[in-house]
Amino acid sequence: MTLEPDGPAFTPIATLGEFRLIDRIRRRIGPPRSSGTLLGIGDDAAVVSVPDGARLVITTDLLIEHVHFDRTYTPMRHLGYKAMTSNISDVAAMCARPNAATVSLGIPNPVSVEMIDALYQGIAEAAERYGVDVVGGDISGSHKLVVSVTLLGHANPDELAYRSGASPTDLLCVSGSLGGSYAGLRILQQNKERLLSVGAAYEPDLADHAFVIQRHLRPEARTDLVETLLSEEIRPTAMIDVSDGLASEVRHLCTESGCSARIMAKDLPIDSRTAAAAAYLDENPLDYALYGGEEYELLFTMTADSVAELRSAGADFSVIGTCMAGDDDPVIEMTDGSTTPLIAEGFRHF
Amino acid sequence: MTLEPDGPAFTPIATLGEFRLIDRIRRRIGPPRSSGTLLGIGDDAAVVSVPDGARLVITTDLLIEHVHFDRTYTPMRHLGYKAMTSNISDVAAMCARPNAATVSLGIPNPVSVEMIDALYQGIAEAAERYGVDVVGGDISGSHKLVVSVTLLGHANPDELAYRSGASPTDLLCVSGSLGGSYAGLRILQQNKERLLSVGAAYEPDLADHAFVIQRHLRPEARTDLVETLLSEEIRPTAMIDVSDGLASEVRHLCTESGCSARIMAKDLPIDSRTAAAAAYLDENPLDYALYGGEEYELLFTMTADSVAELRSAGADFSVIGTCMAGDDDPVIEMTDGSTTPLIAEGFRHF
Repeated sequence: MTLEPDGPAFTPIATLGEFRLIDRIRRRIGPPRSSGTLLGIGDDAAVVSVPDGARLVITTDLLIEHVHFDRTYTPMRHLGYKAMTSNISDVAAMCARPNAATVSLGIPNPVSVEMIDALYQGIAEAAERYGVDVVGGDISGSHKLVVSVTLLGHANPDELAYRSGASPTDLLCVSGSLGGSYAGLRILQQNKERLLSVGAAYEPDLADHAFVIQRHLRPEARTDLVETLLSEEIRPTAMIDVSDGLASEVRHLCTESGCSARIMAKDLPIDSRTAAAAAYLDENPLDYALYGGEEYELLFTMTADSVAELRSAGADFSVIGTCMAGDDDPVIEMTDGSTTPLIAEGFRHF
Repeated sequence: MTLEPDGPAFTPIATLGEFRLIDRIRRRIGPPRSSGTLLGIGDDAAVVSVPDGARLVITTDLLIEHVHFDRTYTPMRHLGYKAMTSNISDVAAMCARPNAATVSLGIPNPVSVEMIDALYQGIAEAAERYGVDVVGGDISGSHKLVVSVTLLGHANPDELAYRSGASPTDLLCVSGSLGGSYAGLRILQQNKERLLSVGAAYEPDLADHAFVIQRHLRPEARTDLVETLLSEEIRPTAMIDVSDGLASEVRHLCTESGCSARIMAKDLPIDSRTAAAAAYLDENPLDYALYGGEEYELLFTMTADSVAELRSAGADFSVIGTCMAGDDDPVIEMTDGSTTPLIAEGFRHF
């Protein structure tokens, strides 16, 4: 995890032009790795094969400067990586495997060829790590930096996990830990504010918060959990990824499944480093865990038997509550025993 | 073809918020039409099936306000339609059939709910006309309007047409007519300039130029030609769509196929209404035909026997030249018998 700038050289995009920039990107992305990728960048469309009988899954994310990221503390390399993992996470949330991506960029004038190189370095790193081929895309001038990624994956029909399959009495589970990404964002925002107010003499102290900053800038998708589910033939009854905050995702899952839920504040997995960042900022780590977005953990429901099997398989997850019959708002039971409705705050993009 | 404004009502996007706007879009798009669309908007990813043994084709286009379109003369409904057809054209250029699309929007403050309705009306019209389901997408705030469409199609492996298959002695063909889209753009630009200089008293005279304006604002993709090729089992040796201008596309096709080409100025199909618009603007229609982009006709190569078969099938196309051995720059033979190298001007997006 580094926060180094994207390099001292600054070559304006216009010195290359569209076709040479595409050639450069094509070289950086490299040849296709997957045998299913029959034709990558360079024709009117890419050509991909999927196993006979498999279902295709398709998802897309649009990232826009100032709405989804701040270039002053987001290295382009990590932005590229995250643009890929946020989509890979959506494919993982279907219990499917990712295979091909298209990446479109809107590039404003202050962005150089070297910055695009760094962005594609991050994209290529994620592509390699998750076994995805970048098979196409588009580039254009733009007022602000725009990154639009569409990802294809595939799954056997009986493996797919929807948001809608949860039953009352299923247990609610979440992978990994919560709140770290939002803690990282708050640390980076505070660092920027201090830099602006103190000026050039400001000494950043980001090293203590490397864990939460990494959670925010360079998150991973939980394809490891999906692989365990598939190899152990354990079927979640419903699954969704935590991109808008846990509270919002629990509500989505309950609405789509026609059930309610009760989650337990004491059981929410909050890493000690996330708690430390919250303490440092004098904020409540429970708020981070409930409302912090861009976490890319998986929220899923399964029977108690499946939970026991998944535990035996050594998977990294926590049981955080249970599904309930009815269509009441989902609630959270606080550590003092009181319960309150789970309000979906979500990220506001408008 | 209308140029009516998008309606007098103006409801700010913020009054709806992200989730209610998505619900509204989902209703406007309607339920999936194709039996291959198993799950549309509403989960982490969409789920689609393709016939066993078919290959997937994937393409994507990013449209950005001020770079690709001017909102002052581009009705949102036509913008939505064109965002779809430009991608459908890329799938057609592979000799494949389109089936599913994702649509992501970056929406600036001056854009209202009613304008998004109009945009999706155009998207839904194109989806219906071409048998495509909109299965997913993303929406976000943005500085300028951004439309990012990714399209999936499929084809049998032996049906796919690449840019790379042309042989010397193949004939070069193009569907429909050329230059109309650029003529329409020039008419709209001139109309805007006059409006700005004359002011409120300005009387537009767009009615005479409805054909070229429609070619620019609401182009169609030539899936009709693809259906004829498939049903008659006629195989183009190479194919590309005319999105950056004929000269640029001929060069792409020759480079990828390792051949050269000679095209004949006298054989370029220029509609009389395109020629009339060029005369009105005192410009050269040949320039429109060679360098005008966003035409969405198909440029393809085939044997003389295939050309005769395609003629018999009643297809709408012209033979405009021949492929040649060697790697010389493609040339154009002018009506006076002189030849000059085809220079690729293409659209500049930076």
